[in-house]
Amino acid sequence: MDELVQAIRAFNGERDWERFHTPKNLAMALCVEAGEIVEQFQWLTPEQSETLPPEILKGVSDEIGDVLIYLLNLADRLGIDPLQAARDKLEQNRNKYPADRVRGKTLKYSEY
Amino acid sequence: MDELVQAIRAFNGERDWERFHTPKNLAMALCVEAGEIVEQFQWLTPEQSETLPPEILKGVSDEIGDVLIYLLNLADRLGIDPLQAARDKLEQNRNKYPADRVRGKTLKYSEY
Amino acid sequence: MDELVQAIRAFNGERDWERFHTPKNLAMALCVEAGEIVEQFQWLTPEQSETLPPEILKGVSDEIGDVLIYLLNLADRLGIDPLQAARDKLEQNRNKYPADRVRGKTLKYSEY
Amino acid sequence: MDELVQAIRAFNGERDWERFHTPKNLAMALCVEAGEIVEQFQWLTPEQSETLPPEILKGVSDEIGDVLIYLLNLADRLGIDPLQAARDKLEQNRNKYPADRVRGKTLKYSEY
Repeated sequence: MDELVQAIRAFNGERDWERFHTPKNLAMALCVEAGEIVEQFQWLTPEQSETLPPEILKGVSDEIGDVLIYLLNLADRLGIDPLQAARDKLEQNRNKYPADRVRGKTLKYSEY
Repeated sequence: MDELVQAIRAFNGERDWERFHTPKNLAMALCVEAGEIVEQFQWLTPEQSETLPPEILKGVSDEIGDVLIYLLNLADRLGIDPLQAARDKLEQNRNKYPADRVRGKTLKYSEY
Repeated sequence: MDELVQAIRAFNGERDWERFHTPKNLAMALCVEAGEIVEQFQWLTPEQSETLPPEILKGVSDEIGDVLIYLLNLADRLGIDPLQAARDKLEQNRNKYPADRVRGKTLKYSEY
Repeated sequence: MDELVQAIRAFNGERDWERFHTPKNLAMALCVEAGEIVEQFQWLTPEQSETLPPEILKGVSDEIGDVLIYLLNLADRLGIDPLQAARDKLEQNRNKYPADRVRGKTLKYSEY
């Protein structure tokens, strides 16, 4: 991942694009790319989403790449370690959703 | 990152949450979390977005963690290597946006 | 709808919030609210999404209100008539997707 | 707006597309289109976003049409009156953000 962050910095630097990459703009770009992942799945049944044909899977893979690039770019710009942020959040979630209380359901859909 | 993917799998397995984690649903969750990052920045000036006060920065860090968790979860579910996907996309972008042609601008905003 | 636009203008004017309502910022806010609608549906089966319990339906209704408010605010700020924009787009879609060619499928998922 | 809802119903009916239009899927489509509005603004300065060149403004207008179509479609499917939802939300916001307390700022960015 460190190498990828270096490659993103080099890519941006060679194009003098850091000027456009305020955290605000990068957050927007990240959200746009996340929307493009959703676009791939919007009309599929849950079952279809599990067994994507190769050309759709390739499209989703490209969009996942885009999201990761903007996520790392944003985190780099803000001085945030994204792996540590994810580990911290997972720890918070372990406390918030104890396994023995939420098994097979979540608070959000426990009423169904 | 591999350790984080393992930790996410364990977290989901302990809660029997894989049943909810169709690629379709994970794509939605990813997009929701990306929206929560945008929420932190929506009313800020570009300048304010560069110098976040500590409590906002902590909030953004948590949301970055959430996005990375769902992104890795989705990629894992689809059998996609997210680092390779990002490297491939960066290579595509190098060809699409040659540095000597787009320096300091992009096609999108070159007309301004 | 005209009355609603007037009410939104009054609401913003009384708070001196137009200064924050650049089209860029309003687009972000619109997207955040759309993400909050998605959040209500992310873990539901297609069937559950058709028969929402009253408290979830109320939540979705509130988010639909938020999206409409920001959509009208953005359109108003840009001098766009949203009803005309929707009618124009529907007309474009009629030509793009002739009923006799796409009945029961769309190009996006016709391969399934 | 009633006529537009009727036109959307006819458009969908002629294509037998109601089968794809679960509230879950419509929420996804709405969010995708909102992301496409954000895409138009992501690299613009606040000032540029106020003075869009005609071809960008046309693109934004089309996307606003798309968002309104999916928003009305979703509300129709759920039996929600979107204008009433927006009026209700505006009323809630009047109480939540009293004009004399939030003038020229909001709680979110009052610390700046």
